[in-house]
Amino acid sequence: MAAIQQSLSTSISSSTSTFLGQHKLRLRSQNVSLPGKTSGIVRCVATPSTETSYKTKVSRNENLAKLQAGYLFPEIARRRSAHMLKHPDAQIISLGIGDTTEPIPEFISSAMAQRAHDLSTLKGYSGYGAEQGEKQLRASIASTFYANVGIEEDEIFVSDGAKSDISRLQVLFGSNVTMAVQDPSYPAYVDSSVIMGQTGQFQKDVEKYGNIAYMRCTPENGFFPDLSSVPRTDIIFFCSPNNPTGAAASREQLTELVHFAKNNGSILVYDSAYAMYICDDSPKSIFEIPGAKEVAIEVSSFSKYAGFTGVRLGWTAIPKALLYSDGFPVAKDFNRIVCTSFNGASNIAQAGGLACLSPDGFKAMKDVVSFYKENTEIIMETFKSLGYKVYGGKNAPYVWVHFPGRSSWEVFSEILEKTHVVTTPGSGFGPGGEGFVRVSAFGHRDNVVEACRRFKELYK
Amino acid sequence: MAAIQQSLSTSISSSTSTFLGQHKLRLRSQNVSLPGKTSGIVRCVATPSTETSYKTKVSRNENLAKLQAGYLFPEIARRRSAHMLKHPDAQIISLGIGDTTEPIPEFISSAMAQRAHDLSTLKGYSGYGAEQGEKQLRASIASTFYANVGIEEDEIFVSDGAKSDISRLQVLFGSNVTMAVQDPSYPAYVDSSVIMGQTGQFQKDVEKYGNIAYMRCTPENGFFPDLSSVPRTDIIFFCSPNNPTGAAASREQLTELVHFAKNNGSILVYDSAYAMYICDDSPKSIFEIPGAKEVAIEVSSFSKYAGFTGVRLGWTAIPKALLYSDGFPVAKDFNRIVCTSFNGASNIAQAGGLACLSPDGFKAMKDVVSFYKENTEIIMETFKSLGYKVYGGKNAPYVWVHFPGRSSWEVFSEILEKTHVVTTPGSGFGPGGEGFVRVSAFGHRDNVVEACRRFKELYK
Repeated sequence: MAAIQQSLSTSISSSTSTFLGQHKLRLRSQNVSLPGKTSGIVRCVATPSTETSYKTKVSRNENLAKLQAGYLFPEIARRRSAHMLKHPDAQIISLGIGDTTEPIPEFISSAMAQRAHDLSTLKGYSGYGAEQGEKQLRASIASTFYANVGIEEDEIFVSDGAKSDISRLQVLFGSNVTMAVQDPSYPAYVDSSVIMGQTGQFQKDVEKYGNIAYMRCTPENGFFPDLSSVPRTDIIFFCSPNNPTGAAASREQLTELVHFAKNNGSILVYDSAYAMYICDDSPKSIFEIPGAKEVAIEVSSFSKYAGFTGVRLGWTAIPKALLYSDGFPVAKDFNRIVCTSFNGASNIAQAGGLACLSPDGFKAMKDVVSFYKENTEIIMETFKSLGYKVYGGKNAPYVWVHFPGRSSWEVFSEILEKTHVVTTPGSGFGPGGEGFVRVSAFGHRDNVVEACRRFKELYK
Repeated sequence: MAAIQQSLSTSISSSTSTFLGQHKLRLRSQNVSLPGKTSGIVRCVATPSTETSYKTKVSRNENLAKLQAGYLFPEIARRRSAHMLKHPDAQIISLGIGDTTEPIPEFISSAMAQRAHDLSTLKGYSGYGAEQGEKQLRASIASTFYANVGIEEDEIFVSDGAKSDISRLQVLFGSNVTMAVQDPSYPAYVDSSVIMGQTGQFQKDVEKYGNIAYMRCTPENGFFPDLSSVPRTDIIFFCSPNNPTGAAASREQLTELVHFAKNNGSILVYDSAYAMYICDDSPKSIFEIPGAKEVAIEVSSFSKYAGFTGVRLGWTAIPKALLYSDGFPVAKDFNRIVCTSFNGASNIAQAGGLACLSPDGFKAMKDVVSFYKENTEIIMETFKSLGYKVYGGKNAPYVWVHFPGRSSWEVFSEILEKTHVVTTPGSGFGPGGEGFVRVSAFGHRDNVVEACRRFKELYK
């Protein structure tokens, strides 16, 4: 038992996991042979599991074993918690994991409350909904975001969020595809690819997984990859406005990207979760680009518009015109995945989504977006005034700050230690993020202003 | 374009899919060469996709291609819709897909409405929650369902439902495991296994997928498999009370099952989504069996207790003592899957779950369960009075009616055609279900009584 405890603690120390946390394992009398009384002190020593504990004969999924450390954001949460333990009186401000902080507009939350109430009435009750989402919401998403590009309601799959859909898409594609990804990028693309067995082992020298094409996005190339140096892959993940760099690709760039996908016969998975933050004429949907419907899937979310990070609602658009090499429609297989592995987004969340897309709700979402964009400006001005080069921000709620020659985790730790502000280390998004720190604009105004005051103190 | 339309329609006709539905494809001018004007009449002819449409060079996931027809329940929904079109004036009663019909107890829906309202306040707002679920809910699930068996809060993973968790578990296990399943069983186990590539092709002669051990459950063996004839597999899916047979395994049987798993070094995935329907001394959790914590995972759900089929809330319990052959804790890898592929259940649904587990909420859930169990008795008595052998019912909301020598789909169609009642064909749950029809007790009382009147009319 003590050995299990040690082994588990060891694992925790090198990984994510709020799940075992500080929780002390209780001794259980049945079925456990006790080699000795546990002291309650947990030592982080790399002890293999004891011979005395029962093990199944099931091999661990080798793809899971390939994953490095923890998924980025729980890892940051872990470091934040450790910092709180160390500095119990510090006023910690989180501009880290990109979590929304502003209340959901009352118009939208009321619609959800109403739906919850209705569920207790005979007339308003509903059970299983369509796995693909409620018809009215699918229609509303299509007309709100895709009216001019011809995406129809039956091409919209409502989900519990973009992150879940990314993994469902990976299950759709299976183990035998190759993929390309922006470097840096939102870690769920790469990690879900590793889990599905699409990749090789992690190569520590280059900080990359084998068999993934990392498309480097830097200030030098305007955060748009040099496609002439990118090999053909089956799948290309592309996020614009980008998380973490904040860069929004232009119409010309996206046209180039669609042509690249088309020439290679690739499928483009386009993440537009921050599209409403665009304020110039960058496309808000990949389907604004002619020909995109034959190569692209778009994943999006209500999280960053309506504060639905906890409510959970998103969607994926898959055009009927998108076909596998044998002519089979991709959407039809995705529909099968959704029907088998998912039972629809919560009906209460869907009522919220519908309210978001009404005229009042849409205006309220725009106000939320505007609020966070003001935060972005404050953060950008702060770092600019300190002489740092900052990127992103304009079309996104993320500011990408360059600390040339320094390690991202080192800067992250320095900022946390000295200002009690949580940011995100750029290298957590891929080797291309090394030397950068992402500062999120999701925060109460007071906190953003205070964080910026502390930044100025630290880096003056 | 016409060819695409034909191809898509062909696909629909042989499959599930409300997603393309009756929707007529609009002609789009850009990027599509039109071989001729479409007539608007869609012929279901097996035409391969036309040479003129663009296809990507991405191969279709061969595992998806193995899947037979549609996922069962959307297929039934499709047949129901077709029946409604044919008989627009018929009063259709659904005792088919196991969808709850009774309103959510007001105490529980109020808690969700309150949480929705709170989300519009600065104090009550919350964004991303822990991927594993809110601490208080995890603790409450542990203390409500596992107080006496030592499952702790950090071994509970809250989810958006058991169906989603089954697929996440399959992603956890990966492609290289073997599995056994009760025959008949809830189709998500087998279909998710096929999708992950754990199986061979579908063998039409035996109606089984290769590389799955089907554990036959019949009236003759009391719906508990003869384990002496079951080969060792890595994973064993087991559902009790069973969907569709309604049989609850006894303590002796589950003890045998746990020993079988332990001797084989297998992992048991135990689905207890109907446990509250148990009224005899059958175990309500696999963890009541000594030693189960070293071999078992338990998946469960609020759906059938609180009417949460549309709200979406469930959980999976993975003991820390469950280890892979190399001693690595299964829960730790599942935690990584949950963190990478999921962002937690909706916070509003979780507020509902917490209310369910308060004394008032738990009593309300018991009342809901009692109501459906009265329905079960009405259905059982009806078929018994008609001379049919019926199984299940006692500890489950499903009645498993035997029509010896007849095809399940034929009986399903006969009942639908002649009584306008939707049931579920037993063979949809596996070849062992052939000759049976599952009648669900989820329905308004009036409808159940009326359906039984019609059954008596048909089979008198």
